[in-house]
Amino acid sequence: MRNGHKQFIEELGETGLVERIAKRFKASSEAVRVGAGEDDCAVMDLESASAGYRYLVVTTDTVQRSTHFPRGISPFQMGWSAVAVNLSDIAAMGAHPFAFVIAMGIPGHTDTDFLDALIAGIKACASAYNVVVVGGDVTRSKELVLTGTCLGFVNKPVKRSTARVGDLLGVTGRLGNAAVGLKMIEEGIRFSEEIEAAAKRALFQPIPRVNEGIILAESGMVTSMIDISDGLALSLAELGRRSHVGFELYKEEVPVSSAEVPLELAIYYGGDYELLFTLDAGISESELKRLRKEVDMSIIGRVMPQEAGIYFREGSRMEAIAIKGYQHF
Amino acid sequence: MRNGHKQFIEELGETGLVERIAKRFKASSEAVRVGAGEDDCAVMDLESASAGYRYLVVTTDTVQRSTHFPRGISPFQMGWSAVAVNLSDIAAMGAHPFAFVIAMGIPGHTDTDFLDALIAGIKACASAYNVVVVGGDVTRSKELVLTGTCLGFVNKPVKRSTARVGDLLGVTGRLGNAAVGLKMIEEGIRFSEEIEAAAKRALFQPIPRVNEGIILAESGMVTSMIDISDGLALSLAELGRRSHVGFELYKEEVPVSSAEVPLELAIYYGGDYELLFTLDAGISESELKRLRKEVDMSIIGRVMPQEAGIYFREGSRMEAIAIKGYQHF
Repeated sequence: MRNGHKQFIEELGETGLVERIAKRFKASSEAVRVGAGEDDCAVMDLESASAGYRYLVVTTDTVQRSTHFPRGISPFQMGWSAVAVNLSDIAAMGAHPFAFVIAMGIPGHTDTDFLDALIAGIKACASAYNVVVVGGDVTRSKELVLTGTCLGFVNKPVKRSTARVGDLLGVTGRLGNAAVGLKMIEEGIRFSEEIEAAAKRALFQPIPRVNEGIILAESGMVTSMIDISDGLALSLAELGRRSHVGFELYKEEVPVSSAEVPLELAIYYGGDYELLFTLDAGISESELKRLRKEVDMSIIGRVMPQEAGIYFREGSRMEAIAIKGYQHF
Repeated sequence: MRNGHKQFIEELGETGLVERIAKRFKASSEAVRVGAGEDDCAVMDLESASAGYRYLVVTTDTVQRSTHFPRGISPFQMGWSAVAVNLSDIAAMGAHPFAFVIAMGIPGHTDTDFLDALIAGIKACASAYNVVVVGGDVTRSKELVLTGTCLGFVNKPVKRSTARVGDLLGVTGRLGNAAVGLKMIEEGIRFSEEIEAAAKRALFQPIPRVNEGIILAESGMVTSMIDISDGLALSLAELGRRSHVGFELYKEEVPVSSAEVPLELAIYYGGDYELLFTLDAGISESELKRLRKEVDMSIIGRVMPQEAGIYFREGSRMEAIAIKGYQHF
């Protein structure tokens, strides 16, 4: 604790505020010729930045205090999340993230400790994935609103529209942890210590599956991919709608951290930054084994014709999956 | 007017809302392989998009209802402004804008007519400069917040840090119109009909100087450039700070639409989307004449050593220019 004196960002003035932030984002990449806070735009050398990749990908995503941040999240974790949510979209294309810009709406009565922690979180998540923060914008606003935009490069972007009947359906990691975290915080439900720790990590400082997305895409076996931050059920529906296919799922294969995690939370709640993907039906056992070694993943079902819908199969019993999850509107 | 029935966007659901928006942004560029609303990211073919330019530029800027939009602005003009403010930054690098993404925070109780007009404004401004809207994000928020991010390409980015002592100082267009507009609206001050019309255009539907920026940059005579949306005085200070120079200005050369526009408004108020730039001292009369033919511009001063400061000269009289203008914090 500091000795009772707090400085608020409105005391810094805009120039002081921008300088304080930009200093921390000093670009470390050879490809970045003009970085954060230096000019009207950031400037990147295309040849050096793209490293020979053929496609440029871009995504933008907003997180804001009142709707996106659970109680108890730290400013560092808020900053981290603003980057992670964008990286998860880059991951879902199988792309290599490269540069990030952040537009921040900040209440004037925010203290500089909070700001510094927020910036440290943004920087930490970006750095963890070799992403350079090249620019941004600061506006005074009623509540904290962070809009990130991430650029990346890829040779073979993996789309949502290219799943084919017969393909295997896979998902990375464990589902439901973020939902467990919310239940703990919002409803006071208790779980084992281990699950609570995993749930808090998933909720407060999500790990975008950047490396997993790249490995999956570059295996050449992935036929479609989507991130499931809106929940498994909604993401299945979206993948099905885009690819004109249905899905058969095996309940017992849906990966959860432990039997304590209700399947309901793993399927119908959002917040998990995992990747849902389809694999070429012709994938060999050895290729699948190799992928499993590199990526923590589970095969949870199979792509069916669109008219079959989206359902669980247990033996000969079929049960439709409701299309519900996290929606902003 | 419709017959009394309004539909609110919260009735559309997130999928319906995203579809309604994405439909209007259907990409028309060969280079865009995955466009708005289609996937986790937008995907652009780099070779085709960059058209051989060497540098990628990126900028992000937020406009929000409570702090950026004057009373009386239409939803179409709000959308237009969200794009224009970003294009002005691209223009200031002398770059060719290419793609745009828009993160929208929208109150749930926004009617669909308002949304449609907002989208039409975004689309209109982007289209006017051959910019493709390739993606975005929608979040429910307390007030309307629009964060745009624009990508562009350029061979010789014009920076803020490269003005040299002796260079000429130039500015595009006419200054003070946006400030006149605000005075009219906020303080009820009246001007002539002609000035009021120009002021409203500048304030409500600003014209980013994209073509002017490109022509200036590609002339090879521009040594530095910055946009002056925070006001002439602040932009001079920033250009001087980055280039380690001072400036001498000639009051009578500062371009205003008419003598009615107080010079105070032309210098210390923001909102004008014009470009401030320096020209190589060795520029020939004929080259300057050619530039003037293509770009509506005025030579308003000269670059001085940093220790001279920033001041007006009238004959032998010198008067320091106060460093004030529009600041968010």
